[in-house]
Amino acid sequence: MSSHDESRFAAEVYGARLERAAELARTAHLDALLITPGADLRYLIGSRAQSFERLTCLVIPASGETPSVVIPKLELASLKDSAAGELGLQIVDWVDGVDPYRLVRNVLNAGARAAVDDAMPALHLLPIADQLGALPVSATPVLRQLRMLKDPSEIDALRRAGAAIDRVHARVGQWLRAGRTEAEVAADIAAAIIEEGHTAAAFVIVGSGPHGADPHHEVSDRVIEDGDVVVVDIGGPVEPGYYSDSTRTYVLGQPSPEIAEHFAVLERAQAASVAAVRPGVTAESVDAAARDLLTEAGIGEYFVHRTGHGIGLSVHEEPYIVSGNDIVLEPGMAFSIEPGVYFPGEWGARIEDIVVVTEDGCESMNKRPHGLTQL
Amino acid sequence: MSSHDESRFAAEVYGARLERAAELARTAHLDALLITPGADLRYLIGSRAQSFERLTCLVIPASGETPSVVIPKLELASLKDSAAGELGLQIVDWVDGVDPYRLVRNVLNAGARAAVDDAMPALHLLPIADQLGALPVSATPVLRQLRMLKDPSEIDALRRAGAAIDRVHARVGQWLRAGRTEAEVAADIAAAIIEEGHTAAAFVIVGSGPHGADPHHEVSDRVIEDGDVVVVDIGGPVEPGYYSDSTRTYVLGQPSPEIAEHFAVLERAQAASVAAVRPGVTAESVDAAARDLLTEAGIGEYFVHRTGHGIGLSVHEEPYIVSGNDIVLEPGMAFSIEPGVYFPGEWGARIEDIVVVTEDGCESMNKRPHGLTQL
Repeated sequence: MSSHDESRFAAEVYGARLERAAELARTAHLDALLITPGADLRYLIGSRAQSFERLTCLVIPASGETPSVVIPKLELASLKDSAAGELGLQIVDWVDGVDPYRLVRNVLNAGARAAVDDAMPALHLLPIADQLGALPVSATPVLRQLRMLKDPSEIDALRRAGAAIDRVHARVGQWLRAGRTEAEVAADIAAAIIEEGHTAAAFVIVGSGPHGADPHHEVSDRVIEDGDVVVVDIGGPVEPGYYSDSTRTYVLGQPSPEIAEHFAVLERAQAASVAAVRPGVTAESVDAAARDLLTEAGIGEYFVHRTGHGIGLSVHEEPYIVSGNDIVLEPGMAFSIEPGVYFPGEWGARIEDIVVVTEDGCESMNKRPHGLTQL
Repeated sequence: MSSHDESRFAAEVYGARLERAAELARTAHLDALLITPGADLRYLIGSRAQSFERLTCLVIPASGETPSVVIPKLELASLKDSAAGELGLQIVDWVDGVDPYRLVRNVLNAGARAAVDDAMPALHLLPIADQLGALPVSATPVLRQLRMLKDPSEIDALRRAGAAIDRVHARVGQWLRAGRTEAEVAADIAAAIIEEGHTAAAFVIVGSGPHGADPHHEVSDRVIEDGDVVVVDIGGPVEPGYYSDSTRTYVLGQPSPEIAEHFAVLERAQAASVAAVRPGVTAESVDAAARDLLTEAGIGEYFVHRTGHGIGLSVHEEPYIVSGNDIVLEPGMAFSIEPGVYFPGEWGARIEDIVVVTEDGCESMNKRPHGLTQL
């Protein structure tokens, strides 16, 4: 897009998001949304500002009046890459020595019912609560109604992210060999994540042998051995900030019959959850599909985490695919389906795709084969 | 140190910090400190855990009873690199589906007066407030009494960080040349930050020509030209997590007489603030020393930010060297002294050293010459 087209796109897309956020805030009987740097701010005005000790805060009045940005004068330049200009937001800048929390209060009415973004640190939240004389509530119940439903340009970004991480998995066999450490393999994979079009390698998990049995193991200096089962869980953001996240499990040599058998069950379980995804079903029913199958096969107790998490401008966001979450799926929702089995001290395996809910099922962003890949 | 010595060190140092934190919390009439992942958690138990949507929280009862760590079972491995084991902390693990905020409440008494770390996100703070039935306060007024006063091992880490970033500044002339972009120069500097002993390049500001007039400019594709004044502000962490942060200003060729004159005033201003540092004076008096000198020289209005910030396990922490901060300096406090002058659209300059307060003045962690370095 030309810079002119981008500006128009920005004003249209972000303008519509801000209007809709104000409308949803009104419906929730709130007076304002207060949004500090993070994925919510990026979603609403395209700002990639980072959170520092000096307050930057977007104030969206539920009334539909023009939103304001309270921002340190020093950091005004951070708004240049956002749509703040095109949107005509009111800029309230401040210099060291001024109390920025008072400025937030001034924009609102006394006793305003405010909702804050999940990322807002206590550093800012506590003085805001103090100025308002009331504890804010979470803005997520409002914002997730927007952020969970990806528009076509967001789904396109997730597709590009999925294709990029698939290209990395296709190359894993070049680096994953007996005699190398997990950390060495991870460094090669991290470089490939960037080469294949991500702007950063956000996470690289290489869990070999017994390390694969710890779902949150990252990397170590363990030397990979022949016969190891290796969990490779990788991802990063592609422009304009949407994440990939995909796991495949590899084996160096021939797997034992027991490993092959358990893995085959896991593969069916992952497919069962993917097959369960369609509009109108609950998040927890998608979790149950994989879990029930593993339980019936007698290995349910080794699946020790939820089935998935939403994804977009954050790696983990709503909706969570977990027991107890009765959110009803709608077209445009994007999340991971990533059941795993973990046998402590021995081995582990996980299969993860990102899927987007369609009118009658889902589209997978990841197309690599799901089987235990022999290297 | 051997692994055994390290364990003993960990148990002694972290044990003493936890005891002192509980004691200070009692003095502040608090019932407990609640600490989520971040610099405070690293300071108190050596944990490098990161903050995710699943709650990890250290609960330190002011009573002096054994602290607890509420942590997802999945992330238990993240405690391995901390002193939680040596300290005998009580581990309260939880699995998906359990309400971890209720677990925090169970550890405390009903109606407990809790203080939370500044980094705690609203995601966790709001449900904790809800469970406690009261808005927590900030733990920083308690913890800064500990964290502001660096012990000898912390000062040693800051010295190593300072020497490492000095070695990078000594090499800047290899890369900073007319015809290259700021981003190209910054990439070379980032690589050198790692080569010289940092574990990451946390920030690299290369502000050339008019970009130097924006104190928070990072890098751009601007091609550096002959005659440009270039602000280079760089830093990163060294083990076990303490930051360097140093700014020098370079010029490509001969500076104009006006630039040379203004820079000479800035150099005297920076030296004046360094000379003002000693136990018993206030943070704001150190800010005033540089500011008054610039004002007397008629360029005070171009110094648009505070003089400095504390540094340690965080790049920016207490004490802030700013007008209005009447904290009295004590031996062991560490902070930046970094006045700058910014002429919008034209050029800018900044000189930054990290200093540690000694018994009778201060020790600078940075030893590079302060002048406008001609390349």
